[in-house]
Amino acid sequence: MELWRAMGLEGKRALIIHHDDLGYTHAQNAAYRNLCLPTGSVLLPAAWAAELALLPAGSHDLGVHLTLTSEWTHPRIRPLTGGASLRDPTGHLWPTLAEAWSHADPAEAAAELRAQIEAALALGLDVTHIDTHMGGVLRPDIAAAYHQLAVEYRLPCFLPEPLAGIGLPGPFLPALEQLLAASPLPRFRPLDTYPVPPAEKRDWFLDTLPRLGPGVYHLIHHAQLPTPEGQALPDWENRQADFEALQDAAVRRVIAEFVPLTYREVRDALRRYA
Amino acid sequence: MELWRAMGLEGKRALIIHHDDLGYTHAQNAAYRNLCLPTGSVLLPAAWAAELALLPAGSHDLGVHLTLTSEWTHPRIRPLTGGASLRDPTGHLWPTLAEAWSHADPAEAAAELRAQIEAALALGLDVTHIDTHMGGVLRPDIAAAYHQLAVEYRLPCFLPEPLAGIGLPGPFLPALEQLLAASPLPRFRPLDTYPVPPAEKRDWFLDTLPRLGPGVYHLIHHAQLPTPEGQALPDWENRQADFEALQDAAVRRVIAEFVPLTYREVRDALRRYA
Repeated sequence: MELWRAMGLEGKRALIIHHDDLGYTHAQNAAYRNLCLPTGSVLLPAAWAAELALLPAGSHDLGVHLTLTSEWTHPRIRPLTGGASLRDPTGHLWPTLAEAWSHADPAEAAAELRAQIEAALALGLDVTHIDTHMGGVLRPDIAAAYHQLAVEYRLPCFLPEPLAGIGLPGPFLPALEQLLAASPLPRFRPLDTYPVPPAEKRDWFLDTLPRLGPGVYHLIHHAQLPTPEGQALPDWENRQADFEALQDAAVRRVIAEFVPLTYREVRDALRRYA
Repeated sequence: MELWRAMGLEGKRALIIHHDDLGYTHAQNAAYRNLCLPTGSVLLPAAWAAELALLPAGSHDLGVHLTLTSEWTHPRIRPLTGGASLRDPTGHLWPTLAEAWSHADPAEAAAELRAQIEAALALGLDVTHIDTHMGGVLRPDIAAAYHQLAVEYRLPCFLPEPLAGIGLPGPFLPALEQLLAASPLPRFRPLDTYPVPPAEKRDWFLDTLPRLGPGVYHLIHHAQLPTPEGQALPDWENRQADFEALQDAAVRRVIAEFVPLTYREVRDALRRYA
């Protein structure tokens, strides 16, 4: 990958530690402030998104966590645009990927993704990248719009490579492979702590990270404090385990063996070289 | 007032204890569950509104807290409709009443109020009444739409009487007095704990309630638990003080000297007699 070469990363192990679901709860934002790891992405339709725009400039590396789903019974989020195909009968985003993918009109979905990026800019966020909540944008026609928005806004977007093994429906893969093959944008090797049971989270970091070969990795976590509000999410123990693992001294040591990377560096390099 | 006579309330002291701002935070909903006082109203554009629709039917007496404002820096709420006059440059409802009143187009405001009622019904809430967040609907032309929605949906709406002394701009009063005079709907004597400093809250209840003469009172409180999320609201101590006062044994005794009233009783009587 030419960009990685230009950035001096070729042959190295570079790691972006990526905090998903920021803005969703107060407890998710509190974990972000506590961890002092700069990179993550914000759910713009969510109540606490605005808090992240108040952080001191330069202390963060935040993107837009583009969403077409509102997966919990509460809290819930609504689309920013009026598209009828994007909302369930209560007016919120669809609860499941299956519902979102079977209903979403491609033009309405593309308008919503654009509105979420514009909402971040309107808050004054220095947007460094875009990525996707639950992979919701990866229906191939929506993925094309997602990719097009990244090109238009001159932002990196999270494009995982390989695509296999991240839980996408098989029929999506050929079109997504084609999109990736034709894309001028960088790809990232995905690492996801979400499927790891809470009790095994720390060991997962300690076992997985040292074995990795050269490459640019995007490591997804969902750290959240176990406050009463945070514990209202059914998967709060998973989120708490991410928070605790990322504070663990041994985990921090294996992380320190990587070149630390931010999306801001990727974005700025992309704008310089592309 | 004929309705109060038909309900057997004439000459009595009846009290609706009204929990404002439900749905706004997890901590506000948690206070509601803890207090076991049935009446309150829900901010439909807010994240936690959906939680209230999951309560066992019959255990609650909930209305729609119609809002045109999003007053804190975070959490924030967005209008449900597309009206450009309802939103600040970040796309959220206006932070202040002054901004909301100076910008809101009456047709866009009326459409938003209707959408908030429809959103409550779509969630399956058995809506018992409508009222107003921060008095935002009381610009006279918007108040006319608010009143018209109450008539159309056959719901009581919170109409305070007297209007003086609740902080409305003087120029609003003549038109509002006219609206009240022509209305077939019942009015409520407003009592508001919000201006009472936290340290004086308990004494306010103990001093104020025993002195009240006959009438139907709507007592506004904002009880919230002092969790980390709740404490993100700058006025959390005021909310915590409401919560504590309403759990106090002496306060409960002065409350017990009133006829306890719900909006469901008012609504059902209104539908029966009107």
